[in-house]
Amino acid sequence: MSLTVVGSIAYDAVSTPFGVRERMLGGAATHFALAASFFDEVRVIGPVGDDFAPESWDVLRTRGTLTDDVERVVGGKTFFWKGEYHDNLNSRETHVTDLNVFETFEPKLSEAARACDVLFLANIQPDLQRAVREQCGAARFVAMDSMDLWINIARESLVKTIEQVDCVILNDEELELLAERPNFVSAAREILTWGPTAVVAKQGKYGAALFTREGYFALPAYPLEHVVDPTGAGDSFAGGFVGSIAAHPDQTVDHAALVRAMVYGTALASFNVEAFGTERIAELESAAVTGRVAELQQMTTFEHRPIALRD
Amino acid sequence: MSLTVVGSIAYDAVSTPFGVRERMLGGAATHFALAASFFDEVRVIGPVGDDFAPESWDVLRTRGTLTDDVERVVGGKTFFWKGEYHDNLNSRETHVTDLNVFETFEPKLSEAARACDVLFLANIQPDLQRAVREQCGAARFVAMDSMDLWINIARESLVKTIEQVDCVILNDEELELLAERPNFVSAAREILTWGPTAVVAKQGKYGAALFTREGYFALPAYPLEHVVDPTGAGDSFAGGFVGSIAAHPDQTVDHAALVRAMVYGTALASFNVEAFGTERIAELESAAVTGRVAELQQMTTFEHRPIALRD
Repeated sequence: MSLTVVGSIAYDAVSTPFGVRERMLGGAATHFALAASFFDEVRVIGPVGDDFAPESWDVLRTRGTLTDDVERVVGGKTFFWKGEYHDNLNSRETHVTDLNVFETFEPKLSEAARACDVLFLANIQPDLQRAVREQCGAARFVAMDSMDLWINIARESLVKTIEQVDCVILNDEELELLAERPNFVSAAREILTWGPTAVVAKQGKYGAALFTREGYFALPAYPLEHVVDPTGAGDSFAGGFVGSIAAHPDQTVDHAALVRAMVYGTALASFNVEAFGTERIAELESAAVTGRVAELQQMTTFEHRPIALRD
Repeated sequence: MSLTVVGSIAYDAVSTPFGVRERMLGGAATHFALAASFFDEVRVIGPVGDDFAPESWDVLRTRGTLTDDVERVVGGKTFFWKGEYHDNLNSRETHVTDLNVFETFEPKLSEAARACDVLFLANIQPDLQRAVREQCGAARFVAMDSMDLWINIARESLVKTIEQVDCVILNDEELELLAERPNFVSAAREILTWGPTAVVAKQGKYGAALFTREGYFALPAYPLEHVVDPTGAGDSFAGGFVGSIAAHPDQTVDHAALVRAMVYGTALASFNVEAFGTERIAELESAAVTGRVAELQQMTTFEHRPIALRD
C-alpha cells in the first residue's frame, strides 16, 4: 500500500553536551520517513532548495522512500535550524530558524500521493495540513502533529484540522495548552470528543500515553543510559507509530492496533536519540527494531497476581 | 510478621488550585503507614507534640497500625509544614517549615520495632537512618527515601546508609544529583553498584522505574483526570511498594517480587493524590486497590506480535 508524509525537510545545526553538528540532514518529514520506511513504502512531500546535497537525497531514500514529490525550489535554500541543548538535554534553545523555501511552501500532491492508504501530517501550518488531508479523501488512517506556535496563533484552524483526522500526536504540554486543561489526561479525553479516534500524549524521556474511545494504554520510554541528541525523536516516534498502521492495510485501526503502534513508535524514537540527527536510524537494521520491541514488552508487562489485603 | 517505618509525623497546611487545608495530618511516616497498612501490621516511629489531636491518633491507627513507638514530646509541638502548589501542580513552594519536635528527634526503637521483618527509612537525616538500620539487623528487606537537602549537605553519610540497605526509592532528579550523572538510567545503575539490590526512580505524574541486577521494569502512573493534592504521594508509593514485600514474609525479594511492589506502589500513590492529605487513603477499601492494580495491568501490558519489517 502507500504511506504519504507532508512536512519539513531541513538542515540542522545542533549542539548538545555530547557533541556538535554544523549541518546535518533533519526535518520532521525526514525523521518520520526514516522510521516509517521499516514498515511500508513512504512518499515524502516537502520542499528543498538548490543546496540540498546528493548525499541527503540518498539518506532520504533509505529503505526505498520515494522522493518524486519532494519539491525542488530553484534559487531557494533548504529550511535551516540551529539549536542547542542544555541542562542534561532537558531544555532547548533555538539560535536560528531560517524557514527559506519552507516559508512559502504549498504542498502539491501527485496522484500517487493523494491515493495513499495512510497519511501523516507533520507539523506545518494547519490550513495546509487540512488542504492536504482533503486531497487524500480515501486514506484509511490520518494522523497529525502540531506545535505550540499554531495552538497560540491559529487555534481555530488547528481545531478544524483535528476534527478531520483519526489521530493527534502531541506532547503532553501541547495537549494541555490546546484543550485548556491543567492535566494531559483530561486534555486528551477532551480532544477525543472533537473527532479523532485516538490521541497520543508524548512525554519525552518518560514515554507516551494513548487515549482511544476503547481505553487507555501507556508505555515508558526505552531506558537509555546515553542520550546523544533528542532532535527528531517525536517524528521518529510518529514514523514508527504510523508506519505500523500502514504495515497492516487490511486491519481495522482499533485499540489493539494502536497499542502496537505505540510500541513501534517508542522503539524507533529510542534509536533516534542514540546519535545525532538521522545517523542512527539511517544505518539501523530491522532485527534491532524487533529486538527492542521484545525488550520493551519484557520491561513493562506484568502478571496480575492479587495480594490478599487487610481492611 | 512486622513492618517498621521511621519518619516524620506532621501537620500540613496546603494550598492547591483545587482547595486549601489549614491544618491536616501529614508527614512521611503517616502517608507510608496508611498505604502499607493494607499489607501488614505497621509500627510507626516518629515524634509528635502536645498538640497531636485524638482524631490524628485515630487516622494514624487506620487498619491496625501500631503507635506504641510514637514518641510524645511533652511541651513540644508537632512538625508543621505549609506549602502551595502552582502551575498545574507542577511546582511547589514552601512557605513554612517548623521542624519543632522533629528537630531533635532521635529514634528510640522498642524490641518489637527492632525485630521487624521489613523496615522503611523515610526521609530523615542519614546518620539517624543508619542508626535505625543497624538496630534492625535481622530485617529481611530494608528500603529508604531521602531528599536533595541530604544529598547536598550530608552526601558521605547518605552514601554510607545506602550501602546498608536493599532498596533506594528516590525521584529521578534526586538520583541524578546523588550519582552525579546527567541521566536517571545511568544514575540508578551507578547506585546499584554501591550495595542495594534495587533502585526505584519515582517520576511523579509519569510513573516509576525499577532497576535491579536482574533487569528493568517501568510502570506509568495511573491516568487521573483530577489530581487534587500531590503531598505525600511518594510516601504512599513507598507504603504500597514496601508493604507488598512485607505481605510475603516467606518470599525471596527477587525482581518479580519488586515488579509486583512497583504495581502496588503505583496504585496507592494514585489514590493519595485524589484528595487532600490522608483523606482518600484513610477511607479507602482494599477492593478498590485490587481493582486499580487490575486496571494498571490492563493499561500497560501488551502482547509482542512482531511485524515483518523492511530492510
